[in-house]
Amino acid sequence: MLKENSQHIKLEQLGEKEILNRLKKYMDFGQIDDDTALITSSQKDLIINTDMLVEDVHFSEATSIPIHIGWKAIAVNISDLAASGVEEILGVTVGLIAPASTNWSWVDGVYTGIQDALNTFGGKLLGGDCSRGNQKSLSITVVGTKGPLNLHRSNAKPGDHLVTSGPHGLSRLGLGLLLSDPFLKSLELPQSLKEQAIKAHQTPIPALNALEKLIFCKPSSSPWRAAATDSSDGLLEAIECLCKSSKCTAIIEPQNLPIHHEWPKGPEWDSWCLEGGEDYELVVSLPPIWAKAWRKTLPLSKTIGKMKKGSPKVIWSNGETIRKSSTQTYKHF
Amino acid sequence: MLKENSQHIKLEQLGEKEILNRLKKYMDFGQIDDDTALITSSQKDLIINTDMLVEDVHFSEATSIPIHIGWKAIAVNISDLAASGVEEILGVTVGLIAPASTNWSWVDGVYTGIQDALNTFGGKLLGGDCSRGNQKSLSITVVGTKGPLNLHRSNAKPGDHLVTSGPHGLSRLGLGLLLSDPFLKSLELPQSLKEQAIKAHQTPIPALNALEKLIFCKPSSSPWRAAATDSSDGLLEAIECLCKSSKCTAIIEPQNLPIHHEWPKGPEWDSWCLEGGEDYELVVSLPPIWAKAWRKTLPLSKTIGKMKKGSPKVIWSNGETIRKSSTQTYKHF
Repeated sequence: MLKENSQHIKLEQLGEKEILNRLKKYMDFGQIDDDTALITSSQKDLIINTDMLVEDVHFSEATSIPIHIGWKAIAVNISDLAASGVEEILGVTVGLIAPASTNWSWVDGVYTGIQDALNTFGGKLLGGDCSRGNQKSLSITVVGTKGPLNLHRSNAKPGDHLVTSGPHGLSRLGLGLLLSDPFLKSLELPQSLKEQAIKAHQTPIPALNALEKLIFCKPSSSPWRAAATDSSDGLLEAIECLCKSSKCTAIIEPQNLPIHHEWPKGPEWDSWCLEGGEDYELVVSLPPIWAKAWRKTLPLSKTIGKMKKGSPKVIWSNGETIRKSSTQTYKHF
Repeated sequence: MLKENSQHIKLEQLGEKEILNRLKKYMDFGQIDDDTALITSSQKDLIINTDMLVEDVHFSEATSIPIHIGWKAIAVNISDLAASGVEEILGVTVGLIAPASTNWSWVDGVYTGIQDALNTFGGKLLGGDCSRGNQKSLSITVVGTKGPLNLHRSNAKPGDHLVTSGPHGLSRLGLGLLLSDPFLKSLELPQSLKEQAIKAHQTPIPALNALEKLIFCKPSSSPWRAAATDSSDGLLEAIECLCKSSKCTAIIEPQNLPIHHEWPKGPEWDSWCLEGGEDYELVVSLPPIWAKAWRKTLPLSKTIGKMKKGSPKVIWSNGETIRKSSTQTYKHF
């Protein structure tokens, strides 16, 4: 990461002007050169989202290098836009707080990760702000254009199939591996699973590809109506959101949990799949004919259950309530 | 501020869901109910800005109550949009970090201030994010439509007049009063000046009205060309920004410093006017005929100098360099 000696220099030694000057290389023309940044009219509705990553809450030096933190900050925001049917990512603003004693190399690494993610998913760095503070944090706002699909959480209907765009629990496994979780100590896991899990945790990929296919495969007989959210707070939490906003009951088939093909069996593993969190897959409720078409074009997708009339809750297909594991809940407060 | 007993409750007792639930009253329909918020197409170019306020860097319990912090967070962001020629404020997103032990009343107060500011200046609360962290901070992103005026920092030209929309130094005086600055101890200041100074510090008003008049009074012979920035980092800093971006020298008339009519005389007071910071007035470089028209419609505005060919610097009209007071510089790092 350290390309030059000046990478070791601390932010307080650089001062705000020099920090902003060094950040210019990451943006074309934006807020750093002026009071605001311009978004040229696209004649389309826009969708906007703000998400924060705080050190020791959402990331830690133990599990992520700066370049991953920057990547993840962008990816998790774009994931929310994907769950709202984004067409094109226009750009992001970045609010960065760091202690004055932070090395410039940390900031440089974070912005390199931000740029990598934008180069991969689209959009440009529009600007932002930086300030000293006791604890590192990133506040990212992403703006994109809305596509033809109205992907509200409240759009689910009884009779819909519930489909996920990919496997769940990988990020939680990755975190466990990075933190040498005692639970994993005696287990022999396939190398490919371990590598994918760590990747899923450090450099998640928002489900833009799955969204594009969802739009492309829509049968002409189906209206532009589907409900979706991303599984950033876990699969179960995502399904509960859909149920609550759409006033439906979700019935989940236990044998159809969206797990990786090398995923071990056992209640802890089911729990990581359901509640591990930070999965950034799409959880979509849509008409059966469209669900089938989407599954065909997306090999890792899975129909995990369906929606029916009833109070907002998530149950197994045998009628039992899906109990939440108290240890898995991801606490923002 | 405390309307009910539950105001004393701490964020960690409420948990994230209940916090978000309580925040719903401040927004129509936005990101809290879905993954993102929608901005309906205005068919216009947009301008966007992100600014942060960090506790003990930009605000402190000693000088601001929560409602003022919320107001100021919005006002300082809108000030940047004003300096870019905003036409209509569309909305804001709010990223809030606070320790888990923070009282709900603090968050409620901040959001009340945010709503007050939006009700006053326009725009709606689109959504945001909240997280626990060691230190309170607010990251605000404001989006607005761009009006007819291209207000870039780089648009100043030799021959332009340099005009400020209002007096400078009031916010710095307000801070001094709130912190019982020893320098002010033996001075008898007019009550009206003290009140205005404290207001300027706690609940600043972005110069939207001045911008509207600037657009309205443009002589038909002048093109839509003017340079502007806001004086959030101080008057001298603002002029330096214009000089640097526009590659001009600014000549300032010392007898024309934009001071309040009750402002005392003396080098410290000049220094507060030039470098006190957090003034949120417009500093505009524009053709003399337009400058005169603007001054006529805006009683508190003042022509403080002019632009000429030369290296980017700010000098007094006698040719002397304007020296920066080392104690006044506002340090973000």
